[in-house]
Order: sequence, then C-alpha cells, then structure tokens
Amino acid sequence: MQLLQNKVKEEGIVLSNQVLKVDSFLNHQMDPVLMREVGKEFTQRFKEHNVTRVLTIESSGIAPGIMTALELNVPLIFARKQKSLTLREDIYVEKVYSFTKQESNEITVSKKFINPGDKVLIVDDFLANGEAAFGLARIVEQAGAEVVGIGIVIEKAFQPGGRLLSEAGYRVESLVRIASLEDGKVTFA
Amino acid sequence: MQLLQNKVKEEGIVLSNQVLKVDSFLNHQMDPVLMREVGKEFTQRFKEHNVTRVLTIESSGIAPGIMTALELNVPLIFARKQKSLTLREDIYVEKVYSFTKQESNEITVSKKFINPGDKVLIVDDFLANGEAAFGLARIVEQAGAEVVGIGIVIEKAFQPGGRLLSEAGYRVESLVRIASLEDGKVTFA
Repeated sequence: MQLLQNKVKEEGIVLSNQVLKVDSFLNHQMDPVLMREVGKEFTQRFKEHNVTRVLTIESSGIAPGIMTALELNVPLIFARKQKSLTLREDIYVEKVYSFTKQESNEITVSKKFINPGDKVLIVDDFLANGEAAFGLARIVEQAGAEVVGIGIVIEKAFQPGGRLLSEAGYRVESLVRIASLEDGKVTFA
Repeated sequence: MQLLQNKVKEEGIVLSNQVLKVDSFLNHQMDPVLMREVGKEFTQRFKEHNVTRVLTIESSGIAPGIMTALELNVPLIFARKQKSLTLREDIYVEKVYSFTKQESNEITVSKKFINPGDKVLIVDDFLANGEAAFGLARIVEQAGAEVVGIGIVIEKAFQPGGRLLSEAGYRVESLVRIASLEDGKVTFA
C-alpha cells in the first residue's frame, strides 16, 4: 500500500535494528484518513470471505480495526490485555508473550461476542513474532469460529511471525512489509 | 442523540446503581456505524471551534475519537495509561484516579503532538467523576494549548463529573445523559 509506505518513509523513526517507531500516525497520534484507507484496503483484500466480525487487540489495533469493521459493516471486538486474571467462565483467555516488553499478558474476549459459525478477520497494527495474532486466532478457535484471515498494517518481515502464521495455515495480508531496519534505515520487502 | 439512547435502552445492562455495562457496542464489542454517527454528532457540535486535534484515552475512547477526528479531518491522539512511570522529559504526565477500579494511573502524552496554539477537543466514552477528562485537560494546558470542549458519549449525570467540568469553565457535550440507574433500570436525564 503506497500511501502507507510513504508515511513510514517520511515519519517512521528507526530506534534500533528491531524497533520502528510510528507514533506520529499509528501508535499514539493517529491519522484518521490513513486509517480509513487501511480499512478500505483490508476490506478489498478480504471481502470475498463474508466476514462477520473483526477482532483486534487494544490499543493500537482499534483504529485500523474500527475502520475495517465500518467498511465491512460488521462489529469490531477488541481483546483486552491484562497482567493476571481471576478465572471467569464468561471469557476466553489466552496467554501472549511480548518480546518487546519481555512480559506475558493475558488477552481476553467475552464469550458473548464470538459464536460458532462466525467468520473472523483479525486486524493488528504490527506483526513481529506473531504472538498476539496467534493468541487472537486461538480465541476465535476456542469459540468454534473460523479465522478467515489476518490483516496487518506493518509487518517486520525479518521477524518470524508472518512465516509462522502462514505455515499454520492462516492467510496473512500485510499492507507494508519491512525487510530490514539495519543501518538506521527502513528497507521495504 | 436518539440512536445512542435507543442502543443504551436495548443493550445496556445495569450492574448496580453506579455501573452500566455497554460492552456490546462501546466498551468491548463496538458498533462502527454508531461510532461514525457519534463522530458526526461531535463534529456538528464543536465544528465552529476550528479544532486542530482530538485527544482521547485508551482504550474505549479510541473508536469514537478516530471517527470524530476523521470527520473533523484532524489527527487523533490517545493518551496512554500506565501504572507507574520513570520520569521522562519528552512526555506530559498526569495522575488520574479511577473510582471504578480504585487505583491511580498515570496518563501520558508525547510532547511532540500537542503544541501551543492547538485547539483540542477531548473525547471520551464515559463521564462519571471527571477524573480522566480533567487529567486530559491538564495535559492540554501543560502544552500551552486550549481545550475547546469535551465530548462525552455517555454521561452518568448522577455523578459529579459533568458539573465539576462545567464549573471549571469547560464546555461539555454529552450525547446521552443518564439521571439514574436505580431499581435496575436506566432513567435518562
């Protein structure tokens, strides 16, 4: 997606070989027109699947998620992240490890909102090791629903998440794929 | 806003005299068409102020915030909540107490994204005691910018936040105002 690639070029800040900061349009300040275009692009790529729900995770997934849900005219659900949790019968829980923050979170979704037969599109802002996407997919499958695909705004293609998700049988569509952040610059795949 | 009031009537769950659960369209599952209408309504009410930024707080403020920002064609910034924080020079920090969770959080906004002269519209999903809205307003003022108004999706008008914000000189526009949750039912103001 050219518009997004330009934005990454112009405003992305390479903090290390692993970390790209895009807090001017995606992770803290958000560009609503760009988010709407992201929603349209995911809709274009996944519309043949008769998506019934978009699922994302707080917080940076919500803006691209709601724009995709608007375009597809289906509800958005966002999973919540929590440090630890009293077990409850009415929620799905999965453990997700964050390599960036070096901590585990539990992600939760109320059982009310994903049902057997649902066709769920997972949307997230970043894909690196795939931990969050796998956690969301496991929740969909716990619910007896189907993951029709995974839409990612920015994939760090030098990390293994995209490959692992594809090998597990998921269709992954990343709007921008980054091959490397070495030498302080962004190289696209 | 009639559409929103109907939704509260049909899907809101009164958990106690203080707590209304609206997780089927606002706090966990989100209705994107309703969120777009919320964005249009806030735009209608505040457009004469030449808003340059919309400011909200993660996570449930992001969907109404991005739709408002889209309609106004300005960036959205969402404040992050954190338990405690190493002081840093590049962020504004305010302490916010949550009566619901009975804990304090620090809310933060990068100094890059609010500048002197900005006209900031604060948007949030709920207004109860006003702690979050006051915290966001203090951040705007720390930045030397102006709060042009506060747009609230659902105000619990039996709690003091709305009155306190108005007394402090802020213009508060709540799309739905709830007078009481007593006897297990929602009474609108």
